[in-house]
Amino acid sequence: MTNLMSTRRRHGLRLLFALVLSMPLLALAAEPLPSWNDGPSKKSIIEFVQTVTDQSGKDFVKPEDRIAVFDNDGTLWSEQPMYFELLFALEEVKRTAPQHPEWKTTQPFKAVLENDHQALAATGMDGILKIFGATHTGMTTDAFDDYAKTWLSQAKHPKTGKPYTEMIFQPMLEMLDYLRSQDFKTYIVSGGDTAFMRAFAEKVYGIPPEQVIGTTFVTAFQFKDGKASIVRTPKLAHNDDGPGKPESIDAVIGRRPILAFGNSDGDLQMLQWTAAGPGKRFMGLVHHTDAKREWAYDRQSQIGRLDKALDEAKTRGWTIVDMASEWRQIYPFDAPAPEQVQ
Amino acid sequence: MTNLMSTRRRHGLRLLFALVLSMPLLALAAEPLPSWNDGPSKKSIIEFVQTVTDQSGKDFVKPEDRIAVFDNDGTLWSEQPMYFELLFALEEVKRTAPQHPEWKTTQPFKAVLENDHQALAATGMDGILKIFGATHTGMTTDAFDDYAKTWLSQAKHPKTGKPYTEMIFQPMLEMLDYLRSQDFKTYIVSGGDTAFMRAFAEKVYGIPPEQVIGTTFVTAFQFKDGKASIVRTPKLAHNDDGPGKPESIDAVIGRRPILAFGNSDGDLQMLQWTAAGPGKRFMGLVHHTDAKREWAYDRQSQIGRLDKALDEAKTRGWTIVDMASEWRQIYPFDAPAPEQVQ
Repeated sequence: MTNLMSTRRRHGLRLLFALVLSMPLLALAAEPLPSWNDGPSKKSIIEFVQTVTDQSGKDFVKPEDRIAVFDNDGTLWSEQPMYFELLFALEEVKRTAPQHPEWKTTQPFKAVLENDHQALAATGMDGILKIFGATHTGMTTDAFDDYAKTWLSQAKHPKTGKPYTEMIFQPMLEMLDYLRSQDFKTYIVSGGDTAFMRAFAEKVYGIPPEQVIGTTFVTAFQFKDGKASIVRTPKLAHNDDGPGKPESIDAVIGRRPILAFGNSDGDLQMLQWTAAGPGKRFMGLVHHTDAKREWAYDRQSQIGRLDKALDEAKTRGWTIVDMASEWRQIYPFDAPAPEQVQ
Repeated sequence: MTNLMSTRRRHGLRLLFALVLSMPLLALAAEPLPSWNDGPSKKSIIEFVQTVTDQSGKDFVKPEDRIAVFDNDGTLWSEQPMYFELLFALEEVKRTAPQHPEWKTTQPFKAVLENDHQALAATGMDGILKIFGATHTGMTTDAFDDYAKTWLSQAKHPKTGKPYTEMIFQPMLEMLDYLRSQDFKTYIVSGGDTAFMRAFAEKVYGIPPEQVIGTTFVTAFQFKDGKASIVRTPKLAHNDDGPGKPESIDAVIGRRPILAFGNSDGDLQMLQWTAAGPGKRFMGLVHHTDAKREWAYDRQSQIGRLDKALDEAKTRGWTIVDMASEWRQIYPFDAPAPEQVQ
């Protein structure tokens, strides 16, 4: 029969063949965020990216200016029952307590060892800095990197029993990939210790060390017996929270982002700074509304309070991601929910 | 005659044609540093780059780890009779003095206005910080960028009469290009104010703002009447000199460079830090030996003193560029010297 196939039919088959061959590419272009339901957030992300990458449009942004910044805790991974890095610090205080008998009677360590959350909270920022000083400093930067990686490879989340590095948001991973496929440079700008985040950011998010910006401690270069090292001291150099975020963006990147994503009032100034630039801008908030699959919290939360930033986002029309209805899947290890029809 | 051409001859012509077509590429590969004479420095640079980019070799370095750091003053551009940024600051003190009558009787400003170099030097680091505070801070980051760009576009060097941004080293520009063509990421790590260097680094060196690391002042994010800005304050945040260089490399890049280039004792720790990593490393010093075409200075110089670093470079076999004999051309506006035969 093949010999008798009409020219028209052969053309038809060729066309079909060409279509099938090009499908993966088309599918990629048509569906860049598969774990996002077809809701307002997915629409606003894709519209923004298409607008600023359209070379013929008036809102075109050159690739080198496509700077996208993301908060980490609560935006790229979970942050409950408390920041994972704080869990690390508290666990390490307990583990190393036998070498520090004085901690039994000294705050904030006494509170940690006695699981006295109220007394711990009462020590405030000063207490937190002492805990971070005891667990995050007094060692070389190389040693800290090993130390953080070892903990991350062994520790399990108290609720899910999963490694912390698996409690990352599948929809946000897809967004990072999508942005990078469109020549965006993706940065983390977050309250965590820069060195702690660098210990997993490249492997987990595909974000290299030089694109991780966080809280830093003063370091001291040492050259002894022909050996060079950099030692971490307990003196805070920069607190990368609230106004500290646009300040570090300016200091480290030196360009204003065109896209910023956060989830709490600590991200408000970063969003304001991003919004204040010329041309098209994207400001987004992850709203934790899913008590079943993750956690639900906002205005009253101790960790990740979202109050003023939520109001400002509503007033100014920023994108607010309703986690419960807009994310088909939370973690990579979850089975995705059936697609919701809007 | 063409019809009678033998097959062999036709093959020969095709081969010739192929050779001619591929010549620009071959030429590029054979001669990446045209302003460098065939001396030990050019040889060591090319050997290093070929070694770490040879995928089949044991010293291969992945592209993302090809971090190259360069001091600016005295390494990428001249620094005599004093750092160009200091000339900017002193000129600005004089220009704005009418608005500050108190400067006539207050140090270090009095010394600047009276051209009293000795009195100025006597005010030390404290004096310098006051001068930088008065000329570099108290304005938004956007305003400072405009201000620095305006000065750079108008100011002329007292000796050459050229704009400062033309007093850059042609051989180093070629080295930056060569490294980038081999997938190196080129950074500036220098004592100048980060924001001042960013005002010209991209245009002049092809180094984008996020790859410029320098001295920083504390900034303050402000959000007033719906407008966001970042204000520069006179408080020093980081002095990017000496040990401050490896410290900022670790804080900002988070990877150890495999190549570092400086020209003074202020670069020693950066070179030591680079040298202390595993695998092949390249450490280089520009030695200012050319009183005729640039300046000749090293161990006794106030600006750009090269003493301890010169000794350590000799002991450890680092590359020391003899500017007078190894650079055919200093500035882009110079005519190149005739090629020297070694």
